[in-house]
Amino acid sequence: MWASVAKRLLRSKVQFSVAYTSLIVQRNKCFPCSSLLYLSRWQHSAPVFEQTCSPEAMIRNVETLDAERFVCVHWEDGGHSLYPYVWLRDNCQCPQCFLHSAKARKLPIENLDVDTGLRNVDLTDANKVSITWPDDHKSEFEAKWLKKRCFSEESRAEMQEELFLQERFYWGSDLKIPTMSYEDVLRCDKAAFKWLSTLREVGIVLLEGAPIKQGELIRLGRRIGYMRHTFYGYTWQVQDKTDANNVAYTSGKLSLHTDYPALQYPPGVQFLHCLKQAESGGESEVVDGFHVCNQLRKEDQKAFDILTSKQIDFTDTGVDYCDFSLQSKQRIVELHPNGDLLRINFNNATRDSVLNLPVEEVQPFYDSLKKFVNLMNHPKNTYYYKMKPGQVVTFDNWRILHGRKSYESGANISRHLEGSYLDWDVVMSRLRALKNKLQNSS
Amino acid sequence: MWASVAKRLLRSKVQFSVAYTSLIVQRNKCFPCSSLLYLSRWQHSAPVFEQTCSPEAMIRNVETLDAERFVCVHWEDGGHSLYPYVWLRDNCQCPQCFLHSAKARKLPIENLDVDTGLRNVDLTDANKVSITWPDDHKSEFEAKWLKKRCFSEESRAEMQEELFLQERFYWGSDLKIPTMSYEDVLRCDKAAFKWLSTLREVGIVLLEGAPIKQGELIRLGRRIGYMRHTFYGYTWQVQDKTDANNVAYTSGKLSLHTDYPALQYPPGVQFLHCLKQAESGGESEVVDGFHVCNQLRKEDQKAFDILTSKQIDFTDTGVDYCDFSLQSKQRIVELHPNGDLLRINFNNATRDSVLNLPVEEVQPFYDSLKKFVNLMNHPKNTYYYKMKPGQVVTFDNWRILHGRKSYESGANISRHLEGSYLDWDVVMSRLRALKNKLQNSS
Repeated sequence: MWASVAKRLLRSKVQFSVAYTSLIVQRNKCFPCSSLLYLSRWQHSAPVFEQTCSPEAMIRNVETLDAERFVCVHWEDGGHSLYPYVWLRDNCQCPQCFLHSAKARKLPIENLDVDTGLRNVDLTDANKVSITWPDDHKSEFEAKWLKKRCFSEESRAEMQEELFLQERFYWGSDLKIPTMSYEDVLRCDKAAFKWLSTLREVGIVLLEGAPIKQGELIRLGRRIGYMRHTFYGYTWQVQDKTDANNVAYTSGKLSLHTDYPALQYPPGVQFLHCLKQAESGGESEVVDGFHVCNQLRKEDQKAFDILTSKQIDFTDTGVDYCDFSLQSKQRIVELHPNGDLLRINFNNATRDSVLNLPVEEVQPFYDSLKKFVNLMNHPKNTYYYKMKPGQVVTFDNWRILHGRKSYESGANISRHLEGSYLDWDVVMSRLRALKNKLQNSS
Repeated sequence: MWASVAKRLLRSKVQFSVAYTSLIVQRNKCFPCSSLLYLSRWQHSAPVFEQTCSPEAMIRNVETLDAERFVCVHWEDGGHSLYPYVWLRDNCQCPQCFLHSAKARKLPIENLDVDTGLRNVDLTDANKVSITWPDDHKSEFEAKWLKKRCFSEESRAEMQEELFLQERFYWGSDLKIPTMSYEDVLRCDKAAFKWLSTLREVGIVLLEGAPIKQGELIRLGRRIGYMRHTFYGYTWQVQDKTDANNVAYTSGKLSLHTDYPALQYPPGVQFLHCLKQAESGGESEVVDGFHVCNQLRKEDQKAFDILTSKQIDFTDTGVDYCDFSLQSKQRIVELHPNGDLLRINFNNATRDSVLNLPVEEVQPFYDSLKKFVNLMNHPKNTYYYKMKPGQVVTFDNWRILHGRKSYESGANISRHLEGSYLDWDVVMSRLRALKNKLQNSS
């Protein structure tokens, strides 16, 4: 019940952080994986293990609509689905048309008759749709396979959600930061799945109990797949450095930002592993940037439109893994083609002095950016925490803005975080693989 | 002269492949770097070494336009430039506002008064603009720095071209493939610069004389910076394999495609190093995809609009570096926000059977794709070559479609290419660094 209410609320883009944050503090340390902090939620909802189409998808009969060149499949449950001839021919699953070892299409567009007719369609005893094409080529499609690919709006939306897990739980300063055991996510698939799905939905998960040694993040990256190499290396050391090549490598305050918009495709996920913490200062700050964007859209549509349309230059020049001279063009807020929020690109340190806007658009851009920054710094949106050695914060770098308070630094290193990046493609790949593995073993 | 004509032609999006291909066959093996095949072109044009603004940018006087809150800089050459107060304050270069070791802004938006006034502006004896702000903070800007950042349309266009090198030389079947020495690009900065700038402009460069051993591409990647890791590893072996996890790992024909649209951000540049070539078959095929897109736009605007707007699902599932389960959504032709061509995403093997379009849009999508594929396969557009062991083809994977003819395979490996990827960000970074190095040494 709770989950379905939550889903409806999310779909209508309404925040329900109170319900969420009151839920996420429920812990159940007795569960086989000690880190399953979300037990009550998963018990109620468990939506990720549902099949988009039930395995029992049974076909009543099939017919052709020759004028439209559609095959119409009538299901036993009373519904029906339409499949264009050309799509069926394109997706023939026979070994001549499809390489099963690679799960990839062999039939090239060159050999596809996009105006194909259809000689015959039958329903087989094994609940399959069997088609004979005008050139005598035969195709067979399983009912379940077809049902998952139904072209109705509802079915497509379900499939897209299954593939991309776009649902988000927005939060403000009342966040109770999701916390799990580092060792559990390394060892237990169920814990790893919950870690990554929470990272997707909430945008941030704190892992506790990691060994306090440099290089440990490599293990965590391997748990998922591989890390994203950048000009700062595979992992990088956030410390106060002489002649810092990055503002993060000082002891100064870092305003809320996303990492690396100077890369045209900024890293999707960031890990920060605390190895040493300053006695005074150095508190971390995070904000749900998507939640802030929705507030901005509501309060000042014009500012939102400017930040989602004008391309702003970013730059990063220096030497680290090797010498680098990066330039990128980013909208401060990047939208999906459907208007959904895709990514925040905002690091004031690397925002270039080169600004490719007509001079009359400069002031409106600054006005919009100021409004966005004021909103992200509003006490209702900011969440502070101070990392302890052995903690690893993992967060969505496309959504979460992060910063830190300044700290006291002396002759010795007083604070040391090790960081690394991953692409969302790699994290989502592991999430799908874990989901399949858990589904198959349940 | 030739270069300026070419630039004008390019800006008006007119092809001049005949002029280009007739030029690129001129070789000059006597030049210090034996691989500088483009000598005559560079001698005439050398545009990349020009300063966008001359070092002699001299200011005649400065004034304020208080109503608009602009500083107006009058140049000795008679022109003038407008700079908004807020942009000047934001880009103050003093050590309090700017971290020079990182070339990054320290002043956060929180501390920027976007409605700032200006107490005083002066021209210093050293040809700098000196500003005193209402709170007594002082900023100084060098004339050259300001001129490069002039907000006029022309100046901004020049700066963007300097930063991103967007000019392209389109070609068809009459391509004379640009060819350079592998060892030269490794050893000589001038050769490396010509390699990468040609890769940017023409989209393909063939390197000759590479050692015939696996792993050699790592040296070439290091010459630039670092390679792009993917689920197929850092480098990957294109051979006929049992239970191939990719259609490329067979001996079959590969239709024209770009690599890896199943990654949401496909690799920008691809290297293929020939280690062994089949006696019969295995010829490579390339097409200038951007040139084909421009033809499609001209011949069938509706098809072009569909391919540049509809998001198509791609998928790649299997095991290689580790297990993977990728899903992405791509427009077959992705445009820049300004309408320019950005990237082609087309690999028919990994185009998903999941197709998130309303059923009535399915046929128009296939019709459009078929037109695009027919056009790319037109003899006027296709260029064939057969790689020899020791050759490395380097090409723009966002622009060039590549394929191969089938080849005979037996009990032993009859053909072996090793491949790897890089991101354009990394290649462009090296290109800018080489340009600066060559400029400073000239």
